[in-house]
Amino acid sequence: MADLRIALAQIDTCVGAIDQNTAAILEWTRRAAGEGADLVAFPEMTLTGYPVEDLALRASFRRAAWDAAADVAAQLAREGLGHVTVVLGTVGTSETALARGAGAAEREVSGSPADLPTNRAVAIQHGKVVASYDKHHLPNYGVFDEFRIFAPGTEPLVLEIAGRSVGIVICEDIWQDGGPITTLGGLDEAGHGIDLLLVLNGSPYEEGKGHVRTELAARRAREVDAPVAYVNMVGGQDDLVFDGGSFVVGPDGAVLTSAPQFVEDLLVWDLPSRAPAAPGAAGTTYPTGRVAAPLHPDEEVYRACVTGLAGYVRKNGFRSIVLGLSGGIDSALSATIAADAIGGQNVVGVSMPSTYSSEHSKDDAADLAKRLGADYRVQPIAPMVDAFQGELALEGVAEENLQARVRGVVLMGISNREGHLVIAPGNKSELAVGYATIYDAGSIGGYAPLKDVDKSRVWALARWRNNAALDAGEIPPIPESSITKPPSAELRPGQTDQDSLPPYDLLDEVLDAYIEHAEGRAELLARGFDPEVVDKVVTLVDRAEWKRRQYPLGPKVTSLAFGRDRRLPVTSRWREPVE
Amino acid sequence: MADLRIALAQIDTCVGAIDQNTAAILEWTRRAAGEGADLVAFPEMTLTGYPVEDLALRASFRRAAWDAAADVAAQLAREGLGHVTVVLGTVGTSETALARGAGAAEREVSGSPADLPTNRAVAIQHGKVVASYDKHHLPNYGVFDEFRIFAPGTEPLVLEIAGRSVGIVICEDIWQDGGPITTLGGLDEAGHGIDLLLVLNGSPYEEGKGHVRTELAARRAREVDAPVAYVNMVGGQDDLVFDGGSFVVGPDGAVLTSAPQFVEDLLVWDLPSRAPAAPGAAGTTYPTGRVAAPLHPDEEVYRACVTGLAGYVRKNGFRSIVLGLSGGIDSALSATIAADAIGGQNVVGVSMPSTYSSEHSKDDAADLAKRLGADYRVQPIAPMVDAFQGELALEGVAEENLQARVRGVVLMGISNREGHLVIAPGNKSELAVGYATIYDAGSIGGYAPLKDVDKSRVWALARWRNNAALDAGEIPPIPESSITKPPSAELRPGQTDQDSLPPYDLLDEVLDAYIEHAEGRAELLARGFDPEVVDKVVTLVDRAEWKRRQYPLGPKVTSLAFGRDRRLPVTSRWREPVE
Repeated sequence: MADLRIALAQIDTCVGAIDQNTAAILEWTRRAAGEGADLVAFPEMTLTGYPVEDLALRASFRRAAWDAAADVAAQLAREGLGHVTVVLGTVGTSETALARGAGAAEREVSGSPADLPTNRAVAIQHGKVVASYDKHHLPNYGVFDEFRIFAPGTEPLVLEIAGRSVGIVICEDIWQDGGPITTLGGLDEAGHGIDLLLVLNGSPYEEGKGHVRTELAARRAREVDAPVAYVNMVGGQDDLVFDGGSFVVGPDGAVLTSAPQFVEDLLVWDLPSRAPAAPGAAGTTYPTGRVAAPLHPDEEVYRACVTGLAGYVRKNGFRSIVLGLSGGIDSALSATIAADAIGGQNVVGVSMPSTYSSEHSKDDAADLAKRLGADYRVQPIAPMVDAFQGELALEGVAEENLQARVRGVVLMGISNREGHLVIAPGNKSELAVGYATIYDAGSIGGYAPLKDVDKSRVWALARWRNNAALDAGEIPPIPESSITKPPSAELRPGQTDQDSLPPYDLLDEVLDAYIEHAEGRAELLARGFDPEVVDKVVTLVDRAEWKRRQYPLGPKVTSLAFGRDRRLPVTSRWREPVE
Repeated sequence: MADLRIALAQIDTCVGAIDQNTAAILEWTRRAAGEGADLVAFPEMTLTGYPVEDLALRASFRRAAWDAAADVAAQLAREGLGHVTVVLGTVGTSETALARGAGAAEREVSGSPADLPTNRAVAIQHGKVVASYDKHHLPNYGVFDEFRIFAPGTEPLVLEIAGRSVGIVICEDIWQDGGPITTLGGLDEAGHGIDLLLVLNGSPYEEGKGHVRTELAARRAREVDAPVAYVNMVGGQDDLVFDGGSFVVGPDGAVLTSAPQFVEDLLVWDLPSRAPAAPGAAGTTYPTGRVAAPLHPDEEVYRACVTGLAGYVRKNGFRSIVLGLSGGIDSALSATIAADAIGGQNVVGVSMPSTYSSEHSKDDAADLAKRLGADYRVQPIAPMVDAFQGELALEGVAEENLQARVRGVVLMGISNREGHLVIAPGNKSELAVGYATIYDAGSIGGYAPLKDVDKSRVWALARWRNNAALDAGEIPPIPESSITKPPSAELRPGQTDQDSLPPYDLLDEVLDAYIEHAEGRAELLARGFDPEVVDKVVTLVDRAEWKRRQYPLGPKVTSLAFGRDRRLPVTSRWREPVE
């Protein structure tokens, strides 16, 4: 029996863009067929985009997705590609969904829809949708909301392709013990198990997750005694980044081939015939293909930031970005990420000096823009601040906030006039401790590229990016003094961040434990942190959360790396007890 | 056997305020004991507040809640109230939570916690927590996120109190067929069923939900052949409003007693001995108590708005509110709701006239403030707009938005200086069609009291409120001309809403079908709506959602009455197809 050529199409889809996703599926199938593929596999919810959230509850959207799957099948057959098996992700409708709830009237009044969609994989052969599989395990933690939207599937799917048995599951199905994997691990009446387990994924990027994925897949490969082919989506979608990194592992757990992260890719691999299970015979030998080299941790995070912003800009129909350039490290790194995402010529940097802005800050901002090839403008804010102050005469923090908000209004005005997306350079550490003004130039806008990057990492990414430029014989984009000078909001004379905050390396360690790991004061002290620092940080974070809750229409802080907001109550009196 | 006196304590808790909730439980138990109650029942998650969201995932918070339950028990015993059985809601920890996921390492990297809390009811007697029940059915649709946070319980609970068997369940447990109710409907070895089903609830207000609750409870009462006592929480929490309306229904489905909506209440009712089940004997006769009269629909919605805002202000530590007064109906109704929530003397209304503001608008704003007893200020925006325009020279919509945003900065400045909560008067219809400026005075702030009220209802509520004042012999708060004049944003000369929108009564009907019921174009046409209107509205809503997605840090529209945002993808290319 000839090898079965498998192509994992690691593509970048867009939620809701059914036509565009359909075109991509056709294009990548043609390409895979050109390379002789018998089976082309696409990521989770390819046709609809992922995560689709409550859009899946709209019946007209589900009908459109279903029609598109039929169109893909018909078009491939018309093009003479009916012999290629295509497995793709889409949205289905559950026949058993009603079993989840009470009567229709009660569900209606409670906001629960009468019928629920499913997270579905379909197989296409010879002009038709020949099989479908509904995801069993619906993750509903962290960034995932699937149990909210979908009804779980209950049946396994094994597809017969050219004499091979291919089990098909979706993403979370391999993260949970039990379920469809158990069924697929069994042997049929003739003593045969499956020849391949194919997993369609929409697995968001988190630092260090690559190893976890391959180790998990290796475990499943051993359980089903067959290779596991893992195809993941790539690209930025909303506040998530998908990093691709598709791969195949053998039943012995070895990675046989893998695709790079953060780019679209077609990973082609040949599944050999299984060796006869004769006593004493050698096992099947699985071929190895290209294996992507792992990225340096800072490069991985930097490219995740670029991928996320690039996807957000393109998928929302923007072509350019505007942001404030203070001369500080946050706006310098944000502008550099923007330039790497959409080209420096599409970035507008606006210096908005106040009375308290230092000369070196203005020079650094101008220098940065020149290195990036960005449009650079200077827009003094004194006339507007003076006009407000002539009327309101604000003092103290209210005056500092006023300066910051005037900058926000300037950026929104330029955005409205010229159509750029406003991005917010605030980093995760300062958002966490409330070191930001609600509705200022650091927090307004459509996207905050550093919202999941703490301040220590901001410096590390800046250094990595400059070194990468040096290694490539290019001019480092970020002025050295933006990296080395003490951080300051420059809203008062001589102000620096360390006047009111612990050193950032220490702050970030405590924040990680307190926010990401939800540790309490007792656990923080047990880690050996200084009680004074712990109480200071805990108080700052709790107060900042409270301030944000007072203005929920203002900026939010996320706690998951490249993930979504924690779901915290808007109104909560809970404060971690401090001394 | 003597009657069992039951007290349903319909109280207003605050999420995270464990000390304050504990004090309320003690106080209401004392009061109930003073009225001779044998059993005092509190709403769902009384000690922690509800909905607690991801706060329940913090171990130090769970420990504090558990300690508080023990404190309540000890304190009641110290006060000689150990004989009273108290049933209250809190957070528990599941021993079986790990069964829901894969290994700890994978759960950690995926953002799922290693152990999960439960939504728990505990019974306190004689100084101790004597029993506990974990909610079985965890709603995860509409405004609910419980399957995300909690592990489901698996065991029923029947409590023996003075010779009676009292089954205890929590909220969603009675909304789902099957589960603990089925078990409780059975008879024990001696042929006895339960004598009472007690349901602890955190059931958010939706218009018309009262009937659904009593009908559902009546069905369950018939199933278990015993009365159902339904205790609900009351008060505003985040963007939800809880309306109370606790009640008891008999096994024949009749409402025996009920508490009013939107106020704290102690509903006392006596459970008689069950009549012997002798052949031919008369059944048990259940006593009736006071029954609250239903509210007029407009009063119900108005009081829900007042309750929501009052709770938000108080629970977030504010004492006063500032908002822009344009002379239009939205800001007039918002200010009136604010005055009813916290007193007119605690409301600051700021008129911020522009070149295009009419004289009658300024007069109406001043008149309104006078009727409400509010602090009234006039703050012209021309100096600030001129300063921006001297620098930026914006035109068209960018200029309109600038005026609107300058107003936003003024309100935030006043808020920072004086500590008032900024509220946003935008209504649901205009948010839905994008008839609002991002970061303007209609959309910034901490709370938008009309965000779930469509424009037609805004007028209806204003008329109801004025008529209620007339009925009470008071001056109607809202100037008649604010109600009768054509709505306008007054950002251009002669501008009115109907230049660009269908009439609001028609618009609101289409919005309801398109947004609330997620109907597509085909379904809207089948309802008989004019195709031109349908395409106009669908296009406006889709474009507005797209604009909002471009600026997710800006205002959002909610789709559930008094509920939370739909979870829509931020980036989505899906548009309802129009001709």
